[in-house]
Amino acid sequence: MSANRIPVAIVGANGYSGEELCSILARHPGVRIAAVSSRQHAGKPVGEVLPRLAGTGDFAGLVFSEPVVPSLLGAGAEYFFLALPHGLAAEFAVPLHKAGKRVVDLSADFRLRDAGVYREFYGGVHPAAELLKDAVYGLPELHREEIRSAALVGSAGCYPTSVLLPLVPLLKAGLVLPGGISVSSASGVSGAGRKAEAALLFGECNESLRAYGLPKHRHLSEIEQELSLAAGRNVAIAFVPHLAPMTRGIHTTIFAKPAPGADGDSILAALERAYAGEPFVRVSKNLPDTKNTAGTNFCDISVRFDGRTGTVVLLSAEDNLVKGAAGQAVQNFNLMAGLDEAAGLR
Amino acid sequence: MSANRIPVAIVGANGYSGEELCSILARHPGVRIAAVSSRQHAGKPVGEVLPRLAGTGDFAGLVFSEPVVPSLLGAGAEYFFLALPHGLAAEFAVPLHKAGKRVVDLSADFRLRDAGVYREFYGGVHPAAELLKDAVYGLPELHREEIRSAALVGSAGCYPTSVLLPLVPLLKAGLVLPGGISVSSASGVSGAGRKAEAALLFGECNESLRAYGLPKHRHLSEIEQELSLAAGRNVAIAFVPHLAPMTRGIHTTIFAKPAPGADGDSILAALERAYAGEPFVRVSKNLPDTKNTAGTNFCDISVRFDGRTGTVVLLSAEDNLVKGAAGQAVQNFNLMAGLDEAAGLR
Amino acid sequence: MSANRIPVAIVGANGYSGEELCSILARHPGVRIAAVSSRQHAGKPVGEVLPRLAGTGDFAGLVFSEPVVPSLLGAGAEYFFLALPHGLAAEFAVPLHKAGKRVVDLSADFRLRDAGVYREFYGGVHPAAELLKDAVYGLPELHREEIRSAALVGSAGCYPTSVLLPLVPLLKAGLVLPGGISVSSASGVSGAGRKAEAALLFGECNESLRAYGLPKHRHLSEIEQELSLAAGRNVAIAFVPHLAPMTRGIHTTIFAKPAPGADGDSILAALERAYAGEPFVRVSKNLPDTKNTAGTNFCDISVRFDGRTGTVVLLSAEDNLVKGAAGQAVQNFNLMAGLDEAAGLR
Amino acid sequence: MSANRIPVAIVGANGYSGEELCSILARHPGVRIAAVSSRQHAGKPVGEVLPRLAGTGDFAGLVFSEPVVPSLLGAGAEYFFLALPHGLAAEFAVPLHKAGKRVVDLSADFRLRDAGVYREFYGGVHPAAELLKDAVYGLPELHREEIRSAALVGSAGCYPTSVLLPLVPLLKAGLVLPGGISVSSASGVSGAGRKAEAALLFGECNESLRAYGLPKHRHLSEIEQELSLAAGRNVAIAFVPHLAPMTRGIHTTIFAKPAPGADGDSILAALERAYAGEPFVRVSKNLPDTKNTAGTNFCDISVRFDGRTGTVVLLSAEDNLVKGAAGQAVQNFNLMAGLDEAAGLR
Repeated sequence: MSANRIPVAIVGANGYSGEELCSILARHPGVRIAAVSSRQHAGKPVGEVLPRLAGTGDFAGLVFSEPVVPSLLGAGAEYFFLALPHGLAAEFAVPLHKAGKRVVDLSADFRLRDAGVYREFYGGVHPAAELLKDAVYGLPELHREEIRSAALVGSAGCYPTSVLLPLVPLLKAGLVLPGGISVSSASGVSGAGRKAEAALLFGECNESLRAYGLPKHRHLSEIEQELSLAAGRNVAIAFVPHLAPMTRGIHTTIFAKPAPGADGDSILAALERAYAGEPFVRVSKNLPDTKNTAGTNFCDISVRFDGRTGTVVLLSAEDNLVKGAAGQAVQNFNLMAGLDEAAGLR
Repeated sequence: MSANRIPVAIVGANGYSGEELCSILARHPGVRIAAVSSRQHAGKPVGEVLPRLAGTGDFAGLVFSEPVVPSLLGAGAEYFFLALPHGLAAEFAVPLHKAGKRVVDLSADFRLRDAGVYREFYGGVHPAAELLKDAVYGLPELHREEIRSAALVGSAGCYPTSVLLPLVPLLKAGLVLPGGISVSSASGVSGAGRKAEAALLFGECNESLRAYGLPKHRHLSEIEQELSLAAGRNVAIAFVPHLAPMTRGIHTTIFAKPAPGADGDSILAALERAYAGEPFVRVSKNLPDTKNTAGTNFCDISVRFDGRTGTVVLLSAEDNLVKGAAGQAVQNFNLMAGLDEAAGLR
Repeated sequence: MSANRIPVAIVGANGYSGEELCSILARHPGVRIAAVSSRQHAGKPVGEVLPRLAGTGDFAGLVFSEPVVPSLLGAGAEYFFLALPHGLAAEFAVPLHKAGKRVVDLSADFRLRDAGVYREFYGGVHPAAELLKDAVYGLPELHREEIRSAALVGSAGCYPTSVLLPLVPLLKAGLVLPGGISVSSASGVSGAGRKAEAALLFGECNESLRAYGLPKHRHLSEIEQELSLAAGRNVAIAFVPHLAPMTRGIHTTIFAKPAPGADGDSILAALERAYAGEPFVRVSKNLPDTKNTAGTNFCDISVRFDGRTGTVVLLSAEDNLVKGAAGQAVQNFNLMAGLDEAAGLR
Repeated sequence: MSANRIPVAIVGANGYSGEELCSILARHPGVRIAAVSSRQHAGKPVGEVLPRLAGTGDFAGLVFSEPVVPSLLGAGAEYFFLALPHGLAAEFAVPLHKAGKRVVDLSADFRLRDAGVYREFYGGVHPAAELLKDAVYGLPELHREEIRSAALVGSAGCYPTSVLLPLVPLLKAGLVLPGGISVSSASGVSGAGRKAEAALLFGECNESLRAYGLPKHRHLSEIEQELSLAAGRNVAIAFVPHLAPMTRGIHTTIFAKPAPGADGDSILAALERAYAGEPFVRVSKNLPDTKNTAGTNFCDISVRFDGRTGTVVLLSAEDNLVKGAAGQAVQNFNLMAGLDEAAGLR
């Protein structure tokens, strides 16, 4: 069986998304871990730095390599997962792409089609603008076919996934109006990464709920790009992210206006139709709860209609590290590699 | 000093609000605990049922009494705090009021001016509709003068306080429009009370974020009553409450439309003016965080203006058990009794 | 592939262990879910009662059946997992055993060899004492060979697993003394089950650490049974369990006296030897942490030697719902069914 | 009243203990805050750095000063609280002491009587060994009279308080043996301070329970100093501290051997006698729980006797930031200043 397994590399494995990615790939029946790199931990056994991975699958004896392109290429991987900060990811994507390797980037570097929008939201010239036209936005439920053949996928972000999956089918079907959409999301603290910052200490996050990143969170750029595509016109939304005292999970609450004639039932039915065949979207009458998606690649969606104010309330929940990051990346990879889309993700 | 202390009684002390109330009154320099009652625990020492209160102030040797009006009256209290479920509170408020005692009710029974609205939201005939005209809505920042002389105060609810304090001054000043307001709130689990329900177990609430009570939470009734008063016209809002994995705290995020000419600066300035002399409202440029209000009677407020979509985002945080319940009740009591409004609450 | 999968049934699936068991079996490549029963939820779709399981594997369309032996037998299962309270489990184990089915019991009913000890610790006559001689204590690292051929396995408990895995090899090797052992364990709240009790509410468990069940926790009976077997003499220990504010995980700290000549290095080496080939025990120089075992079937073990007082300190961590319950049950099942011991558990 | 308030200064106010100290002193009726210093935040308003303190008591308009001795002296304080890392505290204590000011040090610098023990446990020459003979160990229940007249108090540490309060009276009374004592403690994460370290991130501490600092935690030095004093002979104990997923609280479980004739009842009675008049020690038959001490200056103590193994199990709980740090410091200060010992602490 080993002979058939696809060799993959993970670049930047010691953040939360990277660790989750390793954890998923360790039990993926179709891959072989060719290399795992970490600038900070090069030379150390993976299981010592990330004890959760000790003794699991290919990681049992693996040592972190230097994140250097030639040696990464030398390890024989065909697919590369980049779990790096934005900006840095492009530095690896460019040469790997040139070398003919297929790349799944978990950062924001290849999610936007327009380098100008990147500059506006990320505050710098895009490090590889020439590649944007080749890159595909990695949300399988929206771009499955393009992902299959893509050489470079910018795997969709955590907040965007939770906002786009409920809204896109409704905007496409004209069931909600594209104007006046307001979104309130809450994320577990792992969404901020494994950074030694005082604001992320247990003592600062426990029993704490707070908004941040207002009024123009970076994820707005990809959210509005995809909402505009779906609506066929420019869509701008008000978006307020919050930090909640939990490790994993994103919960999103969306306030929107129904198109004339639309109501809770027709919207629920439209969502059920849109996701009937999807392996990782669960539409339900029951309100979603982050804990039911923890450790899974599911995004759970529901809807309520507030007749008193004429408001459609869409609600979604997902695990920010799985469907919002590492699971999504593997789902994209499965499509690219022609594997069962759910391999390693069940 | 003991001679001057005002005798008070707490009816229903073993819920979270009741326990917090006891804890505040234990260190209040101006009161003497004449009686504490609990149907479930009558006859037991308070410190055994609520070990946090053991050995604190008047509770050191106190035993729970039966919640029976004659014996409550016999204990000599002049002020009565009712920390009971709605409906049950009125059963005590009526005879205590008739007996000439002053009552601070923490339940929803005396917050609404209109018995019809009560029936719509609470699903039954109001148990003491004739008293509604005498009752005052117990949010000191809005109704301070009426509270001073009130015989019966319906102390404001937790969500309502967090929504009304940011919005009321802006509606009064005409700085935000009364239409199209959407509110997303998240509460700590203590807000649901000390009820032995599976949905409130640690294993169900930890790592969980979920909306509930949609689309017509009971607190909407008092929120809209007071918003309408402030705006001088009927106001209806979309309101989505969530349960967050923390014990205490409410965080509220409000999306509203600015009146022509209003922006973030003018709105912040208006809030600062409105609350300049208030002991328990802190307006700041910094985004509020529930943890900074935990165990205090403060409500923290800030604002952001999203110029991209023309949205005013108001944010507030409070401790649901203090400013949202027991602290507010004591603040109301202090006003009624002619004491320093902040006594026991610093 | 479906043709080869072994049909299994889960009796009592809506507790935490039962839900975890379903979750593991849903991704187990070698089983088919023939029936899932729940007294409380019979007739309801599994995915509605346990939304985490919605749309996963065989549970996608499954409905809870009544926990009635004839209908359970009728569903065609060959193996039965009992995730029921002690006492009740035996009521199912007896007829299923008689019907020739193989049973993995997650309760305490078949962990003890001596019905007298059961009566002492569980406070009643053993409900099926005649079966005890056929039952095998289901801790694979200690009784692998007996488990393979057992008709009835009493899968080891959560605390016992965390105490036995560090101590048994050392007692067998004579490296620690059997007298004077003291154990302090802390468990996540899921260990107490999904019972609607006030003491298990979020508001009671968050920011709470407390001992309970002193001085004679029921799990002591199986711990001492197995320690005595290992030491070849009666062993009695002091055991203090605590509840910690987390959903999952057990951490155990053991104070023991070294045999003459034994020290930290020789003890670490002995543990490494004992578990060298084990798929689910990780011995390390690093101190164990519950979070590294969460969602896995690993038990992590380390040791420190305190030369100042001549004390061996053994430390272990596991997920109480996996290696401490459902994962262990599946590991036992895999052995009984002749499958890869780690199937479904990686 | 202001005229009579004692001017105090807090040096190093932006750690967790320092912030808690400010919070307690803000409501202390007998003190006036003359200065608050912070190297990192000098020049900034206190309420901006520590929003919890905004608008509370003297902190309303206060700005952090530079921690420089001359300017601290110039601010007119008579008492100085040092909430600084060990080593650094002595740099302030020496000149303040020389200037005739009375000092309450929350660090470990003045807790030990023997500079050699300091070197052994803290790994360096004591920075002010000549002052050790003047310093008093600041645990009021043990050294109340010396504290009253002390110029320099080394306020007792968090773990030591939780270990000493249960054990000292029993060792003094000869009810437990001084040999073979083992202690397992668990602390909330605030005990590690507000340091931007990856190991203290929310994502690393939530759902995590782990031992650390083995086998020779620094606090052992002061624990054994005081146990030895009580026993009249050298006492060495095995001590295992753990980090638990909560912000505040220490829970300590002590395994000890009873002296001949002692049992659970006689030990409970001895503890009740020892602490009958103490304002901040609660002895109870009920097992202590950290949540009942959160935000209070209480240490709760109970005992169980395990007749099966002949083990006395002592259990205690406290808030590590209050009775374990800031509250204890204020209790010491109250004694030194001749105030009500409980002022500001009720």
